[in-house]
Amino acid sequence: MSLSLRFQVESTYEAARAGRLITPHGEVETPAFMPVGTLASVKGVSQDILEELDVQILLGNTYHLYLRPGVEQIRRLGGLHRFMAWPRPILTDSGGFQVFSLNELRKVNEKGVTFRSHLDGSSHSFSPESAMEAQIGLGADIIMAFDECTEYPAPPERARQSMELTLRWAQRSKNYFEEHKQQVPWFQNDDCVDQGQHQALFGIVQGGMDHELRKESVERTVGIGFPGYAIGGLSVGEPRSLTREVVEATVEHLPPDTPRYLMGVGTPEEIVEYASLGIDMMDCVLPTRAARHGLLFTSGGKISIKQARYASDEATLDPNCACHVCSRYSRAYLRHLYASNEVLAQVLNTIHNLSFYLDTMRRVRHSIALGKKACFLSGV
Amino acid sequence: MSLSLRFQVESTYEAARAGRLITPHGEVETPAFMPVGTLASVKGVSQDILEELDVQILLGNTYHLYLRPGVEQIRRLGGLHRFMAWPRPILTDSGGFQVFSLNELRKVNEKGVTFRSHLDGSSHSFSPESAMEAQIGLGADIIMAFDECTEYPAPPERARQSMELTLRWAQRSKNYFEEHKQQVPWFQNDDCVDQGQHQALFGIVQGGMDHELRKESVERTVGIGFPGYAIGGLSVGEPRSLTREVVEATVEHLPPDTPRYLMGVGTPEEIVEYASLGIDMMDCVLPTRAARHGLLFTSGGKISIKQARYASDEATLDPNCACHVCSRYSRAYLRHLYASNEVLAQVLNTIHNLSFYLDTMRRVRHSIALGKKACFLSGV
Repeated sequence: MSLSLRFQVESTYEAARAGRLITPHGEVETPAFMPVGTLASVKGVSQDILEELDVQILLGNTYHLYLRPGVEQIRRLGGLHRFMAWPRPILTDSGGFQVFSLNELRKVNEKGVTFRSHLDGSSHSFSPESAMEAQIGLGADIIMAFDECTEYPAPPERARQSMELTLRWAQRSKNYFEEHKQQVPWFQNDDCVDQGQHQALFGIVQGGMDHELRKESVERTVGIGFPGYAIGGLSVGEPRSLTREVVEATVEHLPPDTPRYLMGVGTPEEIVEYASLGIDMMDCVLPTRAARHGLLFTSGGKISIKQARYASDEATLDPNCACHVCSRYSRAYLRHLYASNEVLAQVLNTIHNLSFYLDTMRRVRHSIALGKKACFLSGV
Repeated sequence: MSLSLRFQVESTYEAARAGRLITPHGEVETPAFMPVGTLASVKGVSQDILEELDVQILLGNTYHLYLRPGVEQIRRLGGLHRFMAWPRPILTDSGGFQVFSLNELRKVNEKGVTFRSHLDGSSHSFSPESAMEAQIGLGADIIMAFDECTEYPAPPERARQSMELTLRWAQRSKNYFEEHKQQVPWFQNDDCVDQGQHQALFGIVQGGMDHELRKESVERTVGIGFPGYAIGGLSVGEPRSLTREVVEATVEHLPPDTPRYLMGVGTPEEIVEYASLGIDMMDCVLPTRAARHGLLFTSGGKISIKQARYASDEATLDPNCACHVCSRYSRAYLRHLYASNEVLAQVLNTIHNLSFYLDTMRRVRHSIALGKKACFLSGV
């Protein structure tokens, strides 16, 4: 399908697979959790530390980067990898989801979406073509087709109409990408990049919560042909049991030899569960956003570090975690930093939560390789 | 004078000295710059990174720690070193300066100072005895006598009256300290600490801007007897040329065999200058506070990273700096982080500014050891 991306399934356990994505900027072991670096930064955490945490792929948000510092700015500076000094793989979303979630006043028509900046109210538009142009300019290793994220709940005719639009946009995204993919800033122009490789464009499956529509969306998106497929339109307010049902009903139709990316999930328990269903890639703001609110994930469950009960707690945050934070600081200190509104609270909390998510994924991969259910579920 | 602190002058160049402080929690090469960790944290920078920067001594603010999380809390948790997981030397101020600078409504009498918390307006008081009690509870390696910081400008009779009060408080500070110093949380109770060592209490010289009063303050403070002496009451709004004059007029009377600590200075140029006058220790919020406002110190001068001129600047912040930030990121990226209000801006800016200050001090020490004026001045 593409010279850009290879995907190798290395072992399976029931529906779950452990594998490897080979991108222009290096390899990613799957199932992979992708931390979100909205504005070319995982809030509060330097790239050195992300490398130490063994983050193998980051997600950037096209909508945010388009507004600040601007795609042309990043393109001129050599693309997102060089701009943010992150030599490892990056995936960008298409901007469609942020337009959906941050813009009450958006207007969708066949051509694309017009919206107002959440920063200053200025008017902008994205089309499949301009979203591809933006993502080619940013130069992530994996980019996403421009889709419409169907709202929840949506009546059947609305879900179909939205899915049909996404399919037409998927074809236009692919057409534009195939014509312009050589314009990526680093193409044959960067020592870090395997020569001749280019970006990979993933298609996105929509279809609301209807299993038949999801199946049809898979078949027709696969008919257009992409080197990987995302499941979009979930985590939009529906109950989590429904998310799981739809994932399960969708994933079974996806081709076994291409990566499957479930967008915008989830809790530590959920990412383990989705991996067990055969998902290869996930991203979520939960670990980083929760950290900023003092909500920490541990092997003993969630901890709200702001609580007074931790003020004198000399214990390590999570005795089963080997991250910088758990190997150095007490809960009492973390609670003090949070209660005193110290910036270091956000920094340390984010490092720990990311470490916990990445550890969870490492355990999942290991369990799949060993073929052991018990280990698998002990991931969390 | 005390079992707690040894100070060795290892080399001199004109008035400048390079030496070594030996504290219960380790050695500090002098002249030393002490980053300010107000609330048991250097804002935004983890202790791992402070160690990598080779920070040898941190300053904590008794006033702030007294309010949050409280001295008793830190004492119960083993003292400030253990609480903040910082095994190296710490110095605490007495709280007097923050009461002076943050409390318009303070009331000073012979007994001490009553003031209102800047957080919630609640009423509190510090006396020489309670300030010692607090600093013994926090357990820094070096603690400061409780003084009155004379305001600027002050008429001669006011400067004398204030100096006399500070002298009486110095004696009371020493009396309380000598009686209670064994109550420090880690005394003979911490593997990291050289057994039998205790805290060192420094006296503070006041006297406003009057050279004769400064001389008298030195002589009478030395008469009380401390293992180190600070020059207080400067950087309180006076012109910088006057600061320098007063430092010069004060330092010549201080004993040559004890450390000299100039409180609350300064710019990179100033810390080099004060070291050249024979100052051994300095602290200042400037590198960390300026970083939060996007003001960066470099070998080529100050840079205000928020300026649009850096938006496309691919250069390293300071080509002569080897810190994490300068070895990885471009000015364009740092400008983007600042302009986008990303927390990582504060983190990276602070790391760089601290690195620049510490490098400056290292060059100064090296120059003193080599006895080379040219090197000395090239520190900045």
